[in-house]
Amino acid sequence: MIGGSLALCLREQGLAERIIGVERSAAHASRAIELGIVDEVMPFDAAIAEAGLIVLATPVDSIPTLAVKALNKVRADQTVIDVGSIKEELCEMISRHPSRGRFVATHPMWGTEHSGPDAAMKEAFAGRRVVICEREQSDADALQLVEDIYRTLGMTPIYMGAEEQDIHCAYISHISHITSFALALTVLEKEREEEHIFDLASAGFESTVRLAKSSPETWTPIFLRNKYNVLDVLGEHIHQLQVLRKMIERDDSEGLTEAMRHAGSIRRILK
Amino acid sequence: MIGGSLALCLREQGLAERIIGVERSAAHASRAIELGIVDEVMPFDAAIAEAGLIVLATPVDSIPTLAVKALNKVRADQTVIDVGSIKEELCEMISRHPSRGRFVATHPMWGTEHSGPDAAMKEAFAGRRVVICEREQSDADALQLVEDIYRTLGMTPIYMGAEEQDIHCAYISHISHITSFALALTVLEKEREEEHIFDLASAGFESTVRLAKSSPETWTPIFLRNKYNVLDVLGEHIHQLQVLRKMIERDDSEGLTEAMRHAGSIRRILK
Repeated sequence: MIGGSLALCLREQGLAERIIGVERSAAHASRAIELGIVDEVMPFDAAIAEAGLIVLATPVDSIPTLAVKALNKVRADQTVIDVGSIKEELCEMISRHPSRGRFVATHPMWGTEHSGPDAAMKEAFAGRRVVICEREQSDADALQLVEDIYRTLGMTPIYMGAEEQDIHCAYISHISHITSFALALTVLEKEREEEHIFDLASAGFESTVRLAKSSPETWTPIFLRNKYNVLDVLGEHIHQLQVLRKMIERDDSEGLTEAMRHAGSIRRILK
Repeated sequence: MIGGSLALCLREQGLAERIIGVERSAAHASRAIELGIVDEVMPFDAAIAEAGLIVLATPVDSIPTLAVKALNKVRADQTVIDVGSIKEELCEMISRHPSRGRFVATHPMWGTEHSGPDAAMKEAFAGRRVVICEREQSDADALQLVEDIYRTLGMTPIYMGAEEQDIHCAYISHISHITSFALALTVLEKEREEEHIFDLASAGFESTVRLAKSSPETWTPIFLRNKYNVLDVLGEHIHQLQVLRKMIERDDSEGLTEAMRHAGSIRRILK
């Protein structure tokens, strides 16, 4: 979804004349060619030898290893980026690599709950932010290239340390997914007793559980690799739910209204 | 938002030639006239005397009382409906009223996170369901009128007992709001330490916390009047979050993947 969308956008903007895919799944590989996402599919090492820009767009648990393997092969005129949502382990793994400068750690803040080549779309990325981590570790020309590409796609770069970005993403993205998964499980549990419970599903419900459709293969490694930050935010979230529960138990109308009013101040950061 | 939208839709469909508003807030009253939502504003009793169809669209804690007051005045050629999201107390309060037959208890399953006359929109209701509770308690002509109106607005009626509808709404609508409020509070709490936490706010975050912008005046009475159902679902939701938390703590990759795969089966009820 992310890798394919990036391919479509790069081609759309005239930034790539030839796109090589590297794909473990034979079905996804041929679908990616069929959809015009990639021109051809090659093994990892062969693809690296041919590419100017190498993009790592796999589940986050495989990115650090792939990053080291890519840097082991890379020449001074090539650039490697990843598009994963966590960075601390990755940045540590490559920190002493002699070709570290050829790597730019990026996290484009766009995605949907879908995955695979059919979820790739040209209307991706524009208007969103892209986090670039530890930019001072990247060679100036590599950083410039990557910033130019993202800007051409309509994205605004913001800069952070790897640790800071992982904390922020736990709060701003990972917790939303956990909440959606848990909410789906809650209602599915009730469905055992109440067969028609979904007859009423409203727009509010749909928007809150939409993320529960996200791929477990993507999200299991994110939660486990960003474990301590995710546990931190999850603990806080459970605490907030327990506070609201106690207010409801006690008929604390004023407390509830006050809490919701404070929660509503989130509007200043939403459209 | 709901009452105003209904007024706009009724007029749009040629179902109402004159619309009278009853409104406590002077500012909302004049705004409703300005926006063409209502033709005039009157006190409650005077409005009831003039109206063919009386629509109660207030916070749910005031609906049972208003329903009794309206039924106390109503003639055999008038019909009263409410559009609130909980029904058990309401249906009990009017159950022995001699004019019970003139009342139709309805819950149109549409809404936004906004409120007040400026949130009223003509593009409301269509394609959604409307719950009608205890239809056997309504006079046949009153029920027919109300069903015809909702069908003309593009809604599909479904029928339920009051108790059943309150349980279903706790699971399908009320919990989504609590989750959103709690999620907003979680991130706002973290913002005290991490000033720029919202710089990364993604589309997933926005869709999950959108409901946190909802009006506390609407939702405090819903949570408290539907207290036992809401506590039931909230307890289950906190339990599901704790199960996921334990899996993350134990690096239980298989358990997490399995839980998320099950959660993803929610897709069968979402578009």
